[in-house]
Amino acid sequence: MKYLFFGIALFLIAACSPEKSQRPDYVLVIHGGAGVMNPKDFTPELEKAYLDKLQEALDSGKAVLKTGGAALDAVVAAVKVMEDSPLFNAGKGSVFSETGENEMDAAIMNGKDLSAGAVAGVRTIKNPILAARKVMEESKHVMLVRDGAEKFAMEHGVEIVDPSYFFDQKRYDALLKAQKHGTVGAVALDKSGNLAAATSTGGMTNKMTGRVGDTPIIGAGTYANNNTCAVSATGHGEFFIRYTVAHDISALMEYKGLTLEEAATEVIFGKLLPVDGTGGIIAVDKDGNYTMTFNTSGMFRGVVTADGKREVAIYKIFSESPLISQ
Amino acid sequence: MKYLFFGIALFLIAACSPEKSQRPDYVLVIHGGAGVMNPKDFTPELEKAYLDKLQEALDSGKAVLKTGGAALDAVVAAVKVMEDSPLFNAGKGSVFSETGENEMDAAIMNGKDLSAGAVAGVRTIKNPILAARKVMEESKHVMLVRDGAEKFAMEHGVEIVDPSYFFDQKRYDALLKAQKHGTVGAVALDKSGNLAAATSTGGMTNKMTGRVGDTPIIGAGTYANNNTCAVSATGHGEFFIRYTVAHDISALMEYKGLTLEEAATEVIFGKLLPVDGTGGIIAVDKDGNYTMTFNTSGMFRGVVTADGKREVAIYKIFSESPLISQ
Repeated sequence: MKYLFFGIALFLIAACSPEKSQRPDYVLVIHGGAGVMNPKDFTPELEKAYLDKLQEALDSGKAVLKTGGAALDAVVAAVKVMEDSPLFNAGKGSVFSETGENEMDAAIMNGKDLSAGAVAGVRTIKNPILAARKVMEESKHVMLVRDGAEKFAMEHGVEIVDPSYFFDQKRYDALLKAQKHGTVGAVALDKSGNLAAATSTGGMTNKMTGRVGDTPIIGAGTYANNNTCAVSATGHGEFFIRYTVAHDISALMEYKGLTLEEAATEVIFGKLLPVDGTGGIIAVDKDGNYTMTFNTSGMFRGVVTADGKREVAIYKIFSESPLISQ
Repeated sequence: MKYLFFGIALFLIAACSPEKSQRPDYVLVIHGGAGVMNPKDFTPELEKAYLDKLQEALDSGKAVLKTGGAALDAVVAAVKVMEDSPLFNAGKGSVFSETGENEMDAAIMNGKDLSAGAVAGVRTIKNPILAARKVMEESKHVMLVRDGAEKFAMEHGVEIVDPSYFFDQKRYDALLKAQKHGTVGAVALDKSGNLAAATSTGGMTNKMTGRVGDTPIIGAGTYANNNTCAVSATGHGEFFIRYTVAHDISALMEYKGLTLEEAATEVIFGKLLPVDGTGGIIAVDKDGNYTMTFNTSGMFRGVVTADGKREVAIYKIFSESPLISQ
């Protein structure tokens, strides 16, 4: 009799324990850029505007994943919301180069087969992430730049706009102010176990014409591999290229057996921070573990999972962060 | 007495054995592109022209290393010789894009501090590798493309030429023929123990305008890290980007403990060959071990070391190869 109770107790413990090894149905993580971000720099209205838009991006990607859609579609949906907002340095809100132009870069990667697409230095594509996807799916190439990328996008039905579409007074004023980094990105794990990553940026404020950062560089700012993880980066792109950040995180997991969290910490704090390589990454691994790791004072970010987690945040210090959980 | 002889014998064996762990003073490895190469496709004159030019490139780089010069200077010297020759698909001999233009890419990386520079889609820079080096040393960026790269190069004293300089009848005829991949590259270890890699290309024949391959992508076609190795790749660039080839070789050494040879074989044969990712790499590690690994029927290649090794070759099958050793 004693043993029966004991057995029932064991059964109940087993049944009720959250199984660490069980993969969540889906996970979506997004970022809207990392950098120097202090609560005093934001009015309550601006803070709310950012958090609302991050929520909207999460919702947009979640709608895809919840119904069994592909990680690839989810990251595009989330990134597109941020590209369409003037709040972020991508698409509509892109910053200006030293000549006052907007030059945007974007990349996407499918962890299932390592297919990838990227565009760089484009000035007339409304949603660079859609062009990157077309390069991946409808060209024999991985990366197209400048006029060639624009011509290809137009021929493949991607919406082209006049460069004035990207003109935003607030951003233009920023050209005269401090260097502001920023990029938007999304990574996702879908119900089928596929990983995908997407990143889009307007580049660095005041950058030289023709400068390409880490965003469209597969392995630097964007990487996805079903064997390991999907990564999207934001920060001082030159360092992220030199340290092959996104692929390095994947390699540390695959070859050294590190967890996603350990690998991200090793690269962002162990390698980049000592050389003043500021920025951060979002990533999700094949088991649904995720991380939002950055060595700056803030990163616009958010996560939604099938387990019901849904939160967005801005600052490093959570006590200062208007973190919204649901 | 017996022990004395035994001791002397041991001493002699130790003294005369080549010490595996002793690093050669310097090593330089070069390539001039990989692809379908059969002896029947080459006249004896053409074969000799290629082998002579490879020797010249080796000599040019060796002259730097022998006198204690930097690996960085050696790889630039070797690549420049090949860029200046119409025989290779880089610089002077660049192939044509679908619109009949030449668009060149190049990159360089310094293993000492992971600094790097790259240009892509340039049409008027006589030696793209020199422009890549200027980007590394005299800009705040890593990668510049198209007009921005050309403007920067001109402002920094890199020789600009009329696009007609790159017109070569033989190459132009090739536009109408088969797809021909090809790239030139060099990797070196210098007397100070520093590694460097440089790669330069005219891209794919008949490529889309604006296409960027693996050559200027740090971590894909070009990578150097004093902790591991220096790598320069050639082949079907899209695969080399998706598989982050150069950094993957480095990561397999650093995180999984593979030798350079094992890492190169794993990536070129284990990962690329199964997906028809054709091409190859040259690499040298921090201990002076080197490899020229390719999964095609040929790769223009050569090596020179302080130990007196000096050879150039074309075909996979060494018995068919007019391999010149000295």
